[in-house]
Parts: sequence; structure tokens; C-alpha cells
Amino acid sequence: MSWTVQDQSFDRERITTNGNKFMTGNGYMGYRGTLEEFGKEQLAAVTLAGVYDQAGGKWREPVNAPNGLFTRLSCNGQQLGVLNTEPERHTQELDIRSAVHKRETVYGLAGGGQLVFTAERFVSMDQLHLLAGKLSINSTVDCRIVIESGIDGDVWDINGPHLHARQEQFVEGVLRSSAVTGELGVSVSVAERTVFSFDAKETAGDSAIRVISFDAKAGETYEWFKFAAVYTGLDAGDNPALLAEQNVRAAEEAGYNRLLEAHRDAWEERWLQSDCMIEGDDAAQFALRYSIYQLLIIAPTGSEKVSIPARGLSGQVYKGAVFWDTEMFMLPFFLHSDPRTARNLLMYRIHTLEGARRKAAEYGFLGAFYAWESQDSGDDACTLFNVNDVFTGRPLRTYFRDKQVHISADVVHGIWQYVIFTGDDTLLTEGGAEVIWECARFFYSYAYYNPVKQRYEILDVTGPDEYHERVNNNAFTNALVKETLEVALKSAELLQAKFPEEFRKLTRQFVDGPFLKEFQTMLDSFYVPQPDSETLLIEQFDRYFQLEEVGLAELKSRVIHKNEYWGGGNGLATTTTILKQADVVLMLNLFKRSYSREVKQANWEFYEPRTEHGSSLSPCIYALVAADIGSPDWGYPYFMRTATVDLTGESKQYVGDLYIGGTHPAANGGAWMAAVLGFAGVQFDGKVLYIKPALPEQWNVVELPLILLGDSFRLRISRNEITVTAATGNRNALALIAFGGERQLCRPGVRLRLQLAGTITADEQQGAL
Amino acid sequence: MSWTVQDQSFDRERITTNGNKFMTGNGYMGYRGTLEEFGKEQLAAVTLAGVYDQAGGKWREPVNAPNGLFTRLSCNGQQLGVLNTEPERHTQELDIRSAVHKRETVYGLAGGGQLVFTAERFVSMDQLHLLAGKLSINSTVDCRIVIESGIDGDVWDINGPHLHARQEQFVEGVLRSSAVTGELGVSVSVAERTVFSFDAKETAGDSAIRVISFDAKAGETYEWFKFAAVYTGLDAGDNPALLAEQNVRAAEEAGYNRLLEAHRDAWEERWLQSDCMIEGDDAAQFALRYSIYQLLIIAPTGSEKVSIPARGLSGQVYKGAVFWDTEMFMLPFFLHSDPRTARNLLMYRIHTLEGARRKAAEYGFLGAFYAWESQDSGDDACTLFNVNDVFTGRPLRTYFRDKQVHISADVVHGIWQYVIFTGDDTLLTEGGAEVIWECARFFYSYAYYNPVKQRYEILDVTGPDEYHERVNNNAFTNALVKETLEVALKSAELLQAKFPEEFRKLTRQFVDGPFLKEFQTMLDSFYVPQPDSETLLIEQFDRYFQLEEVGLAELKSRVIHKNEYWGGGNGLATTTTILKQADVVLMLNLFKRSYSREVKQANWEFYEPRTEHGSSLSPCIYALVAADIGSPDWGYPYFMRTATVDLTGESKQYVGDLYIGGTHPAANGGAWMAAVLGFAGVQFDGKVLYIKPALPEQWNVVELPLILLGDSFRLRISRNEITVTAATGNRNALALIAFGGERQLCRPGVRLRLQLAGTITADEQQGAL
Repeated sequence: MSWTVQDQSFDRERITTNGNKFMTGNGYMGYRGTLEEFGKEQLAAVTLAGVYDQAGGKWREPVNAPNGLFTRLSCNGQQLGVLNTEPERHTQELDIRSAVHKRETVYGLAGGGQLVFTAERFVSMDQLHLLAGKLSINSTVDCRIVIESGIDGDVWDINGPHLHARQEQFVEGVLRSSAVTGELGVSVSVAERTVFSFDAKETAGDSAIRVISFDAKAGETYEWFKFAAVYTGLDAGDNPALLAEQNVRAAEEAGYNRLLEAHRDAWEERWLQSDCMIEGDDAAQFALRYSIYQLLIIAPTGSEKVSIPARGLSGQVYKGAVFWDTEMFMLPFFLHSDPRTARNLLMYRIHTLEGARRKAAEYGFLGAFYAWESQDSGDDACTLFNVNDVFTGRPLRTYFRDKQVHISADVVHGIWQYVIFTGDDTLLTEGGAEVIWECARFFYSYAYYNPVKQRYEILDVTGPDEYHERVNNNAFTNALVKETLEVALKSAELLQAKFPEEFRKLTRQFVDGPFLKEFQTMLDSFYVPQPDSETLLIEQFDRYFQLEEVGLAELKSRVIHKNEYWGGGNGLATTTTILKQADVVLMLNLFKRSYSREVKQANWEFYEPRTEHGSSLSPCIYALVAADIGSPDWGYPYFMRTATVDLTGESKQYVGDLYIGGTHPAANGGAWMAAVLGFAGVQFDGKVLYIKPALPEQWNVVELPLILLGDSFRLRISRNEITVTAATGNRNALALIAFGGERQLCRPGVRLRLQLAGTITADEQQGAL
Repeated sequence: MSWTVQDQSFDRERITTNGNKFMTGNGYMGYRGTLEEFGKEQLAAVTLAGVYDQAGGKWREPVNAPNGLFTRLSCNGQQLGVLNTEPERHTQELDIRSAVHKRETVYGLAGGGQLVFTAERFVSMDQLHLLAGKLSINSTVDCRIVIESGIDGDVWDINGPHLHARQEQFVEGVLRSSAVTGELGVSVSVAERTVFSFDAKETAGDSAIRVISFDAKAGETYEWFKFAAVYTGLDAGDNPALLAEQNVRAAEEAGYNRLLEAHRDAWEERWLQSDCMIEGDDAAQFALRYSIYQLLIIAPTGSEKVSIPARGLSGQVYKGAVFWDTEMFMLPFFLHSDPRTARNLLMYRIHTLEGARRKAAEYGFLGAFYAWESQDSGDDACTLFNVNDVFTGRPLRTYFRDKQVHISADVVHGIWQYVIFTGDDTLLTEGGAEVIWECARFFYSYAYYNPVKQRYEILDVTGPDEYHERVNNNAFTNALVKETLEVALKSAELLQAKFPEEFRKLTRQFVDGPFLKEFQTMLDSFYVPQPDSETLLIEQFDRYFQLEEVGLAELKSRVIHKNEYWGGGNGLATTTTILKQADVVLMLNLFKRSYSREVKQANWEFYEPRTEHGSSLSPCIYALVAADIGSPDWGYPYFMRTATVDLTGESKQYVGDLYIGGTHPAANGGAWMAAVLGFAGVQFDGKVLYIKPALPEQWNVVELPLILLGDSFRLRISRNEITVTAATGNRNALALIAFGGERQLCRPGVRLRLQLAGTITADEQQGAL
């Protein structure tokens, strides 16, 4: 089974999408899948997690570090780079098992003969600040080679420049490039060391580039190594430059191979925790693993101050901001496989509570209104004018920032899911409860009471379907607000029972209310749109059913300009029933145990043809609910579309002249959800693990590891048989309901086999996990 | 002092605006100020009040009757009409005292010599179905004259044709043209009779046109008369054609001069009731009289089933629909001068209550939500897409229909004003109270309670400033909703005390509530935006002050297309503080006794520079409030602009290819308000008449008749002296406060002179009124 993504030719048209497809990273930084000689024009970027800067009154965005792996080659004065010399052969390759990127390029030389250039590199998963590369040339003729190797400080920025007062130094073979960001004065330092395994003359080149020249003999391979390290003032205190230098020297000392080995080991560990195997469908298997790979390279394993931006670490698109995507589309993967990283993601929300409080206050509300586009401080990076009108060139007023209030409920949902999955209530005492209560207070102040209908409602919001702004009683939003209120009450109950002293301390700030009493009052008469008794349909929001029924094809035929925005005040979809992405159906997925199969099916069938899938967050939800209603083959195409989005590059790359491409972590997480929570039918509610598979035709088995309440399991799920293996070190037996049958217990160190054959037979063995 | 509007030349460019400027009418029908030979291309129209029709799925609009005064002339085969032969001299003239339209046109004849054509006509104020004309020719040379005279059935329609199954008959000298409307099958019949005072040969022409030919002798005047009558199935039952014929025969019997005399007498009566004299400013005097004239020709004196459309009876623009304009801008004139017509206007709202109930139910509300654009049934003629986007040609979703909820409060305001001014509470028992309570119920169901702020709010509305749609807590709307609740309670109290049996009957339908108890609860904690304690500013709606401060000039510089709509989803003004028309300032005017001079001045100064005056309803309000704060000279230009709008024709005539011109009754009413309620400072609250003049520099005296609580008065107001004369037949003494001084009583038959000179001296004489 292949673990390799490969391109066997060079195509200028694919430079941008390959930057995403061949991406590497380690959660501290992302390194786009560009070639060694590429610069900012080719969107080369080393994007740092959590370092943001604003320049020239434009939006804040993440900072790209100078590229310490930059290398350029020439032979007898001929520039050997794919942009200068059309290669005779070229492969670019990414091994997603070990996250090692390789290229091999064969150039025809101007004077005859060929030169093979290879480069291998990785962003160390073992040492998060480190980048390393191994490079070589081999020419069929004697020739003069010049290598430019160093740090490319001419970084790609959308709204730069961000790095100022740049200083470059050459200290005993180590290049150091340091600068500070303009807005917050954060130091960003990169050190680099190139080590040659042959004799060569080295001179200083431009800025932080060294120039090495030597006479290469025909047939001989010349190999060299590069080590680079990145530190910033946020993680390294006073002297990031020194730390970077030390890291590079230590790396040289260790040598490339040992570094690679440690990196591979770390990746092996990751895959052991998270690999999900599919038997019977190689294409799906590869796409799913690739999706998991994309999540692993951006997971903030080392910091609870950052979360995952909507485009991961693949650049500055969408301001490097964290959206609801993280809690709703990525978190489930981490909850099941890597609770520590899941915790980091949620701690990020706790650390940004003040920003959410400021936003609520700005709009005159109580509590915490989380940023629609969240960066380091939690203040909202989202502007009121997010899109330009293609017809007039004027900025369009959109309501992402002020009306997508569900973000606060999404955060609460994430926190509570963490508690459910881990049983770790320290997250609550360390700020989680405060976040939950502040979000509930926000909704209490956002809600209105309808005196005639005698119920609380949530008015004037934008739900997941962003084409319909400023609607009342969006079913998704209301259902999540209800959950927020319930979680606020449950978490209070939990803390009061378990940590009464802590509870008193934590709640001191809320004594004047509104607090639990008011939450309960609101909950007692809170309105969540319900399925119609005849049609079983849930109306997406008040009066949605009154909108024009137009059909997607007809709507598309009305398009005048291919980049026109379908939402906003005058958007084509705004006055119709066409939706951007799953909305009601997403809610049915989140609260799947509260709705009948018939309701889910009716709504799937109604809403899917009306869904544009204009967001990469959309198709996976239709796959999930299709599986849930026992129609996995309806869902399969949506799963494949989701799981391959970053492989095919078939997504919007530009709006006007603005690059909006990058990786799609929410889709990556969505692919995982569709496979595991959808087709494999895995669901955990904090007490019982439900497994009700609905495998697509081609799939025979899904197998995966799982961590629940701190205990480890391995699931092997086929159409008729489920095997659950509990690790010997587990502390508790796991309650389990398979195929909708009887409750079983899976005790530590036991393998349980459950078959679907009239009755379920449980076959218990001592396990091997 | 002139009472004449005159044009001394013919200008093709002025055909359309002259149609408005030289308008005649009598409330039953309007006759545009076109020339005798004009047809639909020149927007000739006989617009009928209250007859609506829908054709071909387009909007409903009022029906134009065939033109019974149509006349075309030729001489020796040469067409003599201003469109065919450029006249040598031409005057068009309207006497607004007697509402008689005249034209005199001198044509050069092809074979040499001149022919003078005169035509005089009126729409009888004495017989509302009758039109009459007197025409003549006089040629300097012998010639052969052909006159085409009859009924032009090729009517101007915006969304026609509306008249079907047309039948034309020639019955003993009378032409009859009958047809039925397509939608409701209403008969529309016109009869015509042409009477020649000389011998001529008459033959049938095309359809309903007769052709008369004779040899005219040089120097001799040939005179003839036309009588036409219009009846419809709505006012004449089974046989409107017969009634029309009888009316025309009776008119011939009476003769033109007697008909004209009766018409003049009726007008004399009207002016006696309503003329407002200004000494010292002839231009203002004429413009004000002209404004009053425009109101008198459209006043529905003969029917309580129709009200006044936004463009009067000047055509089909704005669907011939009745807007809030009537109650808020025209009603005050009628309340002060013609309470019977005021009553008709409000009875129209009572008759259309069912439509308002249907609209409320359509949107899921209780009670009555009056139509934004109201026609015969009270169902809303307003569409959801009212304007086209000039950039894409697509219809724009606007929120006039669904969010301008203040219309229901405006209706209540009108009804209550009527009760205040007339003391006639039969309007309440005849349906007025039901309307009031249903509107209050509507608002109770529209309102939401904010649990944190502990108050009822009105969310998601569009106020008078239509550039800002879907706002919360629009100050104007909330203030009017509050008044509705108060009026609902007061009217209940009044009826309960005075007509307890009637009250029980009327309120039976409301016993299950929400009713008075709920209104009181809502009123007790209802939110109306208040002046800021520092700036004294009242925020137009929630977060208005957060909008972009751009300035009108800057905003205008952003305009790309001259016809682009400034409001709606993406309008230029939408995201700025620029307003279309007075909003907060209108509220300050309506509730002037509740706000200090300082508050009014601060808000006037803040909002005026931000007002585009994009509606003809806007400037008069700034004039009113300028007078109120003692700065009449600030207000004077706004008054003049308002009072001359239909004289200058300086208003938008077309949007794209859509004619939106016509007369501006709201501005006409606004001009009267500015003069009388503003500069003359007249205000009646049902108990006391307040007079606090603030005359513009040029004005010395304003003098006008007044009817209050059924009693008649005459006011003569100068800067320092006010004379009030009470008619001898008055039933009660009038309480009066002049110049903010002591309360005085003006007893029946008495003339009271009040001077501003240190103290006010009252000089009482037996009056002469």
C-alpha cells in the first residue's frame, strides 16, 4: 500500500497547488511543498503558528519566516532550476508516513551531458524548531558548479512586509538572520548551516546567502546537508537568534541521519496513534491517510497558545485565523486519537477569552462572543467588509463578524466534547468552565423573549449557510445555543459536586447574574425549530421555506461574473433556498441521537439538492448523515471529494487577484469524520461506545486505534463483525453497544468480538494490545 | 396677487412635467395637464381613484379611463397640433383659484395665414363625474377645418392593458365607450358629447372619434363645447354607461357656462375653507397656494373607500398606492381645514383592515400590519424586489414591504389625530378603535423582550430613512409604537366610559388577549431611544453612530451610475450615516412637546448635513423643526423647495425607462405644514390651541381659517400679534396659549387680539366671522 504522493513531471501551472499538496510541517511551522530554488513568487513559505503582524493598515496575518532551506544551483554559468532550465526528468515526492519531501531533477546541460540534482528534506517532528535537508548533484560531464545556499529573507507576504530591522550575520559557519515584526516587535530568527561532504570554496553572497563553487567530476556524486532552525521571541524569550544557532550546531553534531531517524520515530508514533486502515478500497485508504497526514503536520502538539487556522500552516490566507472549523471539523480526530493536542486546541480558546469578552462588550452584550476569525489575542480579525463586489469593485458589507454567533456555542461544544471524551475535568477548572459560562451569558444577553409565542429566540444571526445572513432562529444556531445552556448547567453541577471550593471561587464573578438561574429559565422556554409533523423537514430559519425555489442549475445560469459572491445583500443565492453548505444537516449530525432516521433522511433529501457545497466543509457532512441513515453509498462520493481536496487541488485558488488557496484542514478532519464516525459508525457519548457500521460497497474493514477516557482501544470493524481490543493497562471496562444490540463490557486487556448474526455473539479473549 | 400658472411657449422637453404642473382633478379623477391633441405617448391620462387592475402578472395599478376630452385639429389637410406644427405662439395656463385649464395656440398655416386655437377645460368640482371643455378656432384666411373629437381609448398604461371588451356606441349624438377591467371585471364607461355652435358635417371616425369638417371663413370665430362623463361599476352599479350618457345629456342641457359657474362656486367654497395667506412674500404665497391646490384636486371628498396615493391622481406611478404619506404629510392639512375629507381618509384605513390583518397573518403576527403600498383591498401591492440593480439589471431585494412596520403606527396616529381635532369619536366606534387595537396587537406580537435590559424592543425594521434597512430600535418607529400602545389604552378608556355597551361588543373578539393588560405591560417597560445626556443626540437606531461618517459630498463622489440605488443590501449609503430623509427629526416634530428646544436643535444640526433629502418628504420636516427651534430662516429654503416641487418639476422623472414622476402630494401637504404648523406655529392638542409664530424674515402675516372640534376660527398671525376670530355659531370657547403666554379663552363670536409686548394683552371684540 502506497504512502507516497508523487508528481513525475514539472508543470508551472501546478506550482501553487503543489505547494499545498507536498506540504510538510510540525505544528510549529508549515513548509510549503515548493522546490529548493523557489522564492516568494512561487509562494515558498515557512509559516509560523501563532505569530501575527499587521502592516500598513491592512489585515493582520501570520508571519512567514525566512526560508533556511533555500538552495540554488548553476553549472558552467547555466542556472539549474526548473524555472530557468526545463528539466529532462523531474519527480517531486512526499512520503506521508515519515513526512519526508524529495525531489529529483535531471537537467540537460548547455554544453551537453546531464546533471542530476536531488534534494530531500523534512520539518522535524522530533525537534519542532528544526528543518533539515540532504542534497546532491551528479553530472555526466566535468563541470563547474556553483551552489547558492542560505536563508532567503525575501519572504512571501500577502499584506507585508512584517519583518523589519533585519540583521544577517555569519558566525563560524552559521548564518543567522534576525528581524522583528512591526506591530508587536516579536523577534524572528533563523539560523542555517550548510555542511559539504566534499571540498568547495565558500564566499559570501547576497545578504544571507553563501556561494559555494567547485569543479565537479563526471559520474561523481557530491552530497551536502542543510540544517536550519527557527525561533521567535514568543517561544524563546530574549535571544531566539542564539537558540537557533545552538540548535543548528547541535543538529550538525548529530548529523542528518540521526535527525531523520528521530523524526521518523516521532512520525511512527503519530501513525500508531491515529492511522485508520480501510481494507478493500486503496483509493479511499490513501486519501484518508493523506487527510490525516495534513492534520498531523499542523497539530499544535507543543503549544496551548495556538490552534489550527482554516488553511493550516500553508500560508497567510484567511489571515491565518482560527475559525469554527477547528472545533467542529478537526477536533473530533484529535479527541479520538490525541487528547493532549485536543486539549491544546481548547486551551487556546481559554487563553483568548479576554478577546471574546471584548468583542461581546463592543456589541453591547454580556459574556464572551468569540472571534469569527481568531488570532493570537482572540480579538476578531474579521472585517465588516469581507468580499469585494465584482461589478463595482466596492467592498461588500458582510455579516460574518457580527452575526455568526454560533462560534461561541461551537467553542463550548468543543470543550464539552473534550470532557466527554477524556473525563478530564481539569480543563473546566483551568478556565473551561469560565468560557462555557461566559458563552452562555453571551447568549442570554443575545436572546430575546417573544411574549406571544412565550419563548426565547435567537434573532438576527448567520448560520453555517453564510449565503443567508441575518436570519432569525437558525435551527443549527438555536440547537447549539441550547447545548451551551445545558452544558453551562451541567458543568456547574459537576464542579459544584466535585470541586465545591473551586466552584465558589470561579463563580464569584457571576453572583450578580445572569447566571445559572437565568440559564435555566431561558432553557425552559427556549425555541429550537423542530421537524414538521407532515414533511419531517426542519426549516433552516424563519421563513426559509418562503424563499424562491430556483434549483442550482438555474441559479448558476444566472451568474454574470464567475467570481461574483452568491451571498451578502444582493447575492444570487440570498433570496433563494440555495445554501452554501450543510446547515440543518450539520445539526442533525451533531445531535444525531435526538432525531429519527426518517427525519434525517427527509432533510438530507430536501437540503442536499439545494446545497452548493461552496465550502470545503460541506460534503463530508452529507457523507456522515448518509452513513447514519444507512445509505453509505450516497455518502461515498462526498467522502472522496472531501478526502482528496488537497490532492487534486480542485478548489478555488484565487478570488480576483487574491490567493485564497492553501490546505483544507476542516475537509481533512471531515474526511476522517466521514470514515470513522460515518461509515465505521463509531460514536462515544462519554459512557457508551456505539458502533453501527454502514460501510460503502468497496470497504470490507475499517481498523483504527482509539483513546477514550484515557484508555486505549483498537477497533476492527467490518459489516458483520466488530472486534474491540482493550489495552492491558486500561483502568476501566468500556461499555459498548454494537450493531444497536445489547450493552457489552470490554475489560482491560481483553479482545471482544461481536458478530451480527441474528443475535450478537460476544467472543472474549485475552487481548494483545 | 396671481393665481395663475402659465407657460408662454411650447417645449417638448416639458411635456411630462407640465402634465403634473397643469394637473386638474376633483378627487374622483385626475386629468393630467396635457394638451387636447395629446395621447398616451405624451402621458395623457384620466386617472380614476380607487379602481385598480392587474394585467399580465405585472403589478396592479390604477386604471386610466379613456380620455373624453380628446380633440385633434387639421386645416387644409395640415395637422394642427403642437407635435406636428411648431406653433408661432403658445400659452398654457392653469387658474388654481377655479381649477380651469386653458391653452391658446397660434399656428402658421402652410398656405400662409394664421389660425388661433383655444381650449378651456375643467374637471367639475360640482359634479364629480363630469369633464367639460370649450374650444374655438379663428383663422386669418378661409380654410377647410377638420376636427376630430371624441374619446381616446388608447390610454396610457404602465402595466396595461386594463380595459377589455371595449364597446363603442354612438347614441343620438352621444358617444359611449365602455369596457371592463381584466382582473375584477369592473365596468368603466365614458360618454361624450360635442356641441357645435356652427354648422358642420359630422361623420364617424375611427372607433370613438367623430370627424367634423367645415369651411371656416377668415376672421370668424368658431366655438364648440365638449362634455364628458366617467362612471365605473364601483360607483354606479349596473349601468355606468347609461349614467355617463345621462350625465352628458344633462350637462349639454345646462350648458357650459352654468356648469363652469357651479364648478367655480365649489372651488370658492374650498378656498374659503383652506386658503392660507402670507403677507410679504409673493413667491411663498403662490407656492403655498399651489400646494394647497394640488391637495384639493385629489382630496376624496366623495368617497370613504379611497385615500390619496403617493402621486395623487397624476397617473399610475407607485401603483397608485396609498403610503404613510397620507396620514403623516397630508392629513394635517385636512384635519385643520376639511375634517370630513380627513374622516374619509381614515375610513379608507378602516375599510382596508382585513387586508392589514391578512398581511400580519402572512408574516405570522397578530393584529393588523398595514400595507406599505395600499390599494383597494388593503393587501400590500409592494413587492419584495422594488428596485433594479443598475449594475446587473437584477431586481434588488428591498424591505419596504416587510419591515416598514411603522405604517401601522402611522395609521393609528392619523386616527387619533382625527379624534383630537374633531372630538368625533364615532370614528372609533365605526371601526377606528378596532384598527387601533389591532395595530397595537400587531406591535405586541412584533416586539421582543430583552431579558438583560428588561425592556421591550422593536427589532428588524426600516424607518423613514429607507437607506438603512432592517435596523433595531429605530427611534421614530419606537416612539410611534409607544403612541399606538397609549392610544390603544386611551381609546379603550374613552369608549368604556362613554359607550360601555359598544365597548363590550367591540372587544369581544379580543378577550383571549393579548389586549389591554398586555399593552400596559409592554408600555411599562418599552424602550424608546432617548437623547444622550451629553450630546443631546438621539441615535437613529442601534449602532447608527458606529456607521461610517462620510459626508454627502464624499458619498456623491463614490457614485458610479447616476441611477444607482443608495439603499438596499449594497447601497452606497447603507453602511454610512447618510440618511435618505428626516427620521429622528421627523419624530421630534411629531412629538414636539416632549423634547426640549436644545434637543431639537442638536439633532437638527447633527442630522441635517447627513440627510440626502432623497425623498420629497424630507425638506419640509427640517423647515418645521427649524421654525420650532426659533430659526425659521434656516427652514425657509426647505419650505420653498417643498412648496415648489410640482411647479419646477425638479424631481426625478425616470428611473431607467420607468416613469416615476407625477405630483407630490406629501410635499404639498408638507409645505402647508411648514407654513402653518411651522412658521405660523399653530398647534392643537385637543384641548388647547398653541400659537407660537416664528415667521421667516420676509413674512409679515399668515392668515388662515381653522376648524377645531367642529368650531370655526380665523387666525391672523404676525410676529407680535395674533388675532383669533371665533365664528358666531361655534359651540364652545377655545382655550388658547399665544407666544407661550397665559391661557386665554376665545368664546363664540368673539375676536381676540393677543400682543407680544412684555405681557400679552388680550383685546376682545365681538367678531364678524
